[in-house]
Amino acid sequence: MTSYTFTEEKLRNFTRNVFLKMGCPPADGDLATDVLLSSDLRGIDSHGVARLSGYIRLWEKQRINATPNIRVVHETPTTATVDGDAGLGLVVAPFAMKVAIEKAAIYGTGWVAVKNSNHFGIAGYHALMAVEKEMIGISMTNASPLVAPTYANERLLGTNPMCYAFPAGKYPPVVVDMATAAAANGKLEIAQRANLPIPEGWAQDKNGKISTDPNELKAGGSLLPLGSDKDHGSHKGYGLSATVDILTAVLSGANYGPWVPPFVAFLEPSANPVGEGLGHFFGAMRVDGFRPAADFKQHLDNWIERFKSAKTVDPSKKVIIPGEPEYAFEQERRVSGIPLVEPVVLDLNELADKLGIERLSV
Amino acid sequence: MTSYTFTEEKLRNFTRNVFLKMGCPPADGDLATDVLLSSDLRGIDSHGVARLSGYIRLWEKQRINATPNIRVVHETPTTATVDGDAGLGLVVAPFAMKVAIEKAAIYGTGWVAVKNSNHFGIAGYHALMAVEKEMIGISMTNASPLVAPTYANERLLGTNPMCYAFPAGKYPPVVVDMATAAAANGKLEIAQRANLPIPEGWAQDKNGKISTDPNELKAGGSLLPLGSDKDHGSHKGYGLSATVDILTAVLSGANYGPWVPPFVAFLEPSANPVGEGLGHFFGAMRVDGFRPAADFKQHLDNWIERFKSAKTVDPSKKVIIPGEPEYAFEQERRVSGIPLVEPVVLDLNELADKLGIERLSV
Repeated sequence: MTSYTFTEEKLRNFTRNVFLKMGCPPADGDLATDVLLSSDLRGIDSHGVARLSGYIRLWEKQRINATPNIRVVHETPTTATVDGDAGLGLVVAPFAMKVAIEKAAIYGTGWVAVKNSNHFGIAGYHALMAVEKEMIGISMTNASPLVAPTYANERLLGTNPMCYAFPAGKYPPVVVDMATAAAANGKLEIAQRANLPIPEGWAQDKNGKISTDPNELKAGGSLLPLGSDKDHGSHKGYGLSATVDILTAVLSGANYGPWVPPFVAFLEPSANPVGEGLGHFFGAMRVDGFRPAADFKQHLDNWIERFKSAKTVDPSKKVIIPGEPEYAFEQERRVSGIPLVEPVVLDLNELADKLGIERLSV
Repeated sequence: MTSYTFTEEKLRNFTRNVFLKMGCPPADGDLATDVLLSSDLRGIDSHGVARLSGYIRLWEKQRINATPNIRVVHETPTTATVDGDAGLGLVVAPFAMKVAIEKAAIYGTGWVAVKNSNHFGIAGYHALMAVEKEMIGISMTNASPLVAPTYANERLLGTNPMCYAFPAGKYPPVVVDMATAAAANGKLEIAQRANLPIPEGWAQDKNGKISTDPNELKAGGSLLPLGSDKDHGSHKGYGLSATVDILTAVLSGANYGPWVPPFVAFLEPSANPVGEGLGHFFGAMRVDGFRPAADFKQHLDNWIERFKSAKTVDPSKKVIIPGEPEYAFEQERRVSGIPLVEPVVLDLNELADKLGIERLSV
């Protein structure tokens, strides 16, 4: 597929202009831009600027509030619940993580549940905010229902990602950032565009039958939890996704399970919600709350070296340290730019015309 | 296979006698017994009294200290690191979870990393200690290296379980308690006894080839992470297992990765350890640190009801709430007793003869 490469600066300006047109205060626009660009820089193309027109459509439907009054509504020394006031998750989530980090600086750890928010971009961005402060960062969100729990023939859970990020010494941070489904929707979309079947174990059709057709989800089917089927531990993927749903939403007062508002604007949210918006959960733990940070980093470096040098089945493939490929993408794309596939560029320029901002010239 | 059923009381007395012969102080013997029996009661037969002779063999090798000086060696208001002094994990883990709960009672949350410990039984026991106090409980441990990370042909990680437990209202607690491997070793042992093949995706042979032979692990093969292969997300299972390894051991000062001391006494621990013993990690979060506990429980009940009543692919199978089957086992076995298969009874009576305690009469 044709793609065009843009400098980071060019995409930043474009994205900031979109958020300003939405009515975001400039600081919020900058922050939301930074979260989205971080996704594109890190090679997670599905969660970056490709989603801009989706955010705009939600705003047009008044499901995103561009000038939210984000605030702590409940707290103890190390916990808080944040009401996102229907703001962009891209802005609400960093606010909440900042609260967690401030609590951790004083008490060792900080934990924040968030309700009344929207899609927050990549989980890794928020967890890495803690890593910059020599803390372990934890970040989770629930999401539009697309996944059927083990045995179910209903979409009851989102791809509900969880992320754990750890500061290393001479290596990049270890960042485990993963959807709790066998494969996220973005992978099905790639197979759709390429007209290729998907592996058995990613999706079932609307009758609950395992299918290799990448269009099944659009036809009423469901994604499957990590593990794919009961024999291979899909109850564990379902359990992880349930954990994320409970921590992000049952704990915060957001919507959970099938009540989570869909990301796509053409689907209406539930008429009988059980909470407000969607939910996130964040944690920050000072490494030196457990052992001197230098000791932790030295041992994490040793861990990394041991795993990187592991004997592999295929000598041409090395064991990958979680977060390492994304870090490598970021180094490279900061220099050589960010490639966007043609349909994304067309979509963004259509958006530019609608909003009356400068197009991305190719 | 022939099995014999014993009352809970009978197995408690037997188990307590074993720990007393080991030299445990009576209170520690009672506690260790409670943890092991909880596993048998909850239907997790692999982690209960069936392991008693394994603990004794480690004690005989002086790898378990029956009279440990378990203590906090580092702390902040909400974090602590505990040195288990090579004690039974069955005793060290409840000590550490109690520290977490005490901190949570004051500050909202408490987090404890543990080094220099041993096998701690089922993760669920410890997490449920928090649930009794209207807290969310979190419990993790690393374990003997048996699992190959994605692409690896080496055992670098344990089955490293993670557990999250949540208090509900009218329903039993939701308890997600799962190994991060596709299947734990206990399932291979069942297939070995029954002389049946295992599903593709649980194990690879010593050359890294996927195998359905349940004896492969004993022949130098490896277990596979949850997800089984890269296409089905094994990098996610590997990432979760890595998260557990880092939180339990790199953070606490325990051994990690391939350096974790093996549970079986016939394998020697590494001659060049990178830490002390194996590691655990515990967390306790007051539910009312985020929202009133009654609100949380009411919504968790609603979550449970919605998932239990989900439409299923096979109408004879319902969606299972994590922790529900174990709770049902516990109710039933408290009344009707705990069945043990014949080889376990023979092994326990051999142990009784060796230690000079009363046998289990069948």
